[in-house]
Amino acid sequence: MTVTAPQGFLAAGVTAGLKSSGAADLALVVNEGPSTAAAAVFTANRAKANPILWSQEAMKGGAARAIVLNSGGANCFTGAQGFQTTHATAEHVAALLGIGAGEVQVCSTGLIGEQLDLAKLTEGSTAAHAALSADGGADAARAIMTTDTVPKTAVHEGDGWTIGGMAKGAGMLAPGLATMLVVITTDADLPSADLDAALRASTRVTFDRLDSDGCMSTNDQVTLLASGASGIRPDLADFTDALTAVCADLATQLQADAEGASHDITIEVVGAATEDEAVEVGRSVARNNLFKAAVFGNDPNWGRVLAAIGTTSAAFDPYAVDVSMNGVRVCHAGEPDRPRDEVDLTPRATHLLIELHAGAAQATVWTNDLTHDYVHENSAYSS
Amino acid sequence: MTVTAPQGFLAAGVTAGLKSSGAADLALVVNEGPSTAAAAVFTANRAKANPILWSQEAMKGGAARAIVLNSGGANCFTGAQGFQTTHATAEHVAALLGIGAGEVQVCSTGLIGEQLDLAKLTEGSTAAHAALSADGGADAARAIMTTDTVPKTAVHEGDGWTIGGMAKGAGMLAPGLATMLVVITTDADLPSADLDAALRASTRVTFDRLDSDGCMSTNDQVTLLASGASGIRPDLADFTDALTAVCADLATQLQADAEGASHDITIEVVGAATEDEAVEVGRSVARNNLFKAAVFGNDPNWGRVLAAIGTTSAAFDPYAVDVSMNGVRVCHAGEPDRPRDEVDLTPRATHLLIELHAGAAQATVWTNDLTHDYVHENSAYSS
Repeated sequence: MTVTAPQGFLAAGVTAGLKSSGAADLALVVNEGPSTAAAAVFTANRAKANPILWSQEAMKGGAARAIVLNSGGANCFTGAQGFQTTHATAEHVAALLGIGAGEVQVCSTGLIGEQLDLAKLTEGSTAAHAALSADGGADAARAIMTTDTVPKTAVHEGDGWTIGGMAKGAGMLAPGLATMLVVITTDADLPSADLDAALRASTRVTFDRLDSDGCMSTNDQVTLLASGASGIRPDLADFTDALTAVCADLATQLQADAEGASHDITIEVVGAATEDEAVEVGRSVARNNLFKAAVFGNDPNWGRVLAAIGTTSAAFDPYAVDVSMNGVRVCHAGEPDRPRDEVDLTPRATHLLIELHAGAAQATVWTNDLTHDYVHENSAYSS
Repeated sequence: MTVTAPQGFLAAGVTAGLKSSGAADLALVVNEGPSTAAAAVFTANRAKANPILWSQEAMKGGAARAIVLNSGGANCFTGAQGFQTTHATAEHVAALLGIGAGEVQVCSTGLIGEQLDLAKLTEGSTAAHAALSADGGADAARAIMTTDTVPKTAVHEGDGWTIGGMAKGAGMLAPGLATMLVVITTDADLPSADLDAALRASTRVTFDRLDSDGCMSTNDQVTLLASGASGIRPDLADFTDALTAVCADLATQLQADAEGASHDITIEVVGAATEDEAVEVGRSVARNNLFKAAVFGNDPNWGRVLAAIGTTSAAFDPYAVDVSMNGVRVCHAGEPDRPRDEVDLTPRATHLLIELHAGAAQATVWTNDLTHDYVHENSAYSS
């Protein structure tokens, strides 16, 4: 059901022919209202793809009635022609739905630096429009996949209202979002300002803390559409909690399907002076190739954790830090503690606990290991 | 000849038994004077190994008469016992030479978080002292190798004076130095303040711009020892130029022997607003795993270059940037230019030119590709 789980939404996923594989590559999600309130967060990358440039402008009014997403090409660094492709796609979808182009969000993902075929996009959009249905969410979730091996979806049932979501992303997973497209729908009746606040609060502690490979994408967008069809206005704190749960669920699915990964690493940083510093420490470890390669080899090389922490500006004494891997404290006060061969890194789920002893703040960052398959997939990637 | 090429230096490399392989693992270099002027730069990592803590203090007077270096263990995160090991090693070498411990620099490299065997260090130092000779530079260069496949040495002949150098380092190669130990000797007669100025100017544009894998070490040190034995005081600018050439030569050798690398990538950033911004842009590309994996696969995926640039704070318009790979301009003004299949990435030497069109400053950063062998070596590394 995914994005069609809440009332008031139709969706479809079709093959537009953008992918040479012939797999589904165009998704359309339509909000039938009565509300059209919406919010979105966009990649922090200064090199933004054409659909991001379009969607940011279109979202300024806090409303959207449809979102069209394609895989098979990022439409990034494609110049004026590329922007025109995005614009024309929005115009075409708007005409099909009898709405304004400014009510249509556009997302693209795939190879950077290649023009998208506008004819295929418009023909695909027409086919998707014809295929729209109240149970099209699963098809839509499949159509946005690139190197994903499984579609990612989530549903949360509130008290008379529902949140549904779909996500794609397997590489370029990094802070400030990353080759990640997410559409979340709800039939809760909330104004766009509330949706925006809830979305920012939710992504800040979920998608923004997933740092699979340190690479920030040009095309990321997380969009929240609210139909208001339940007629219920939930408490904003309750809604934010539910939205955070949906985002965390989708983020975990992205991590589990990250390109080539053999370990899902949870980096828990506690005892930091501030939450920002806890995040900085977590990210520095999440981006350390030597640590990530060691985890791939089931090697509890905790020295690489401390070497990574030492590159941050966070408050801490390097010789007061404790490090535990999968429950075994291998480093205490900057010295060896339990023997490293007590650590079992064979499970895919890997837990790293860093105790800074510099304050009371904490944060968790999720990453993956660095594997032969990651290198292979990203040296051969061209779709 | 390496560090023994200049007059006034003796060196040796011996097997102390710190490496399980039985390979040479302890080097000693002695400055016989008449000058004992010296300078050093140390890792910027806040997690500094015990020998760094020792050597930074000992170098404060701007003098050194000997440097002892071991592979087979980093002596980092080894607590009070580890610092005592470093201190006792310096005391032992000082006693052998009849000098003060404060005149002895100590460097270590290898696995973090394991105690070094002090008895092996002192016995090895005694053996190295007995083996000191005016042509021991080559042995010393071999004794500091860890995962290096070849020793790295360089010599520059000035006008009546000479510079010699040796370096080790194959992984953890990153800005602010990186698992890199370098000893440079000269018989030029320069005071320590001049040596310090020359060394900082030289390392800033050489070792500091080598970013093989983004990982900063806890143990890096570049040490410059001057015997004054030539009796000649060169012009400081001439000396700095020569020293920069030696550092660039050694940095290039480190890049060429980087763990698992199959491409040596030169990233030339021109048209930046400032030199610092040119370096920031170069580093962001050098640390982008997706770009590095693409180069491994001979894939001229220039979109990943632009995506990396977009994460920086440098002044530039993403849609005014030109990118050329091995002489083929694949991106012009943020749009596709020459077809990417015109780029031949099969040579090991890879040139990436980024024209920001934002100013007149420039910088070059060197890196390597991300390969299966890098992952393999760093998942199995334990020596």
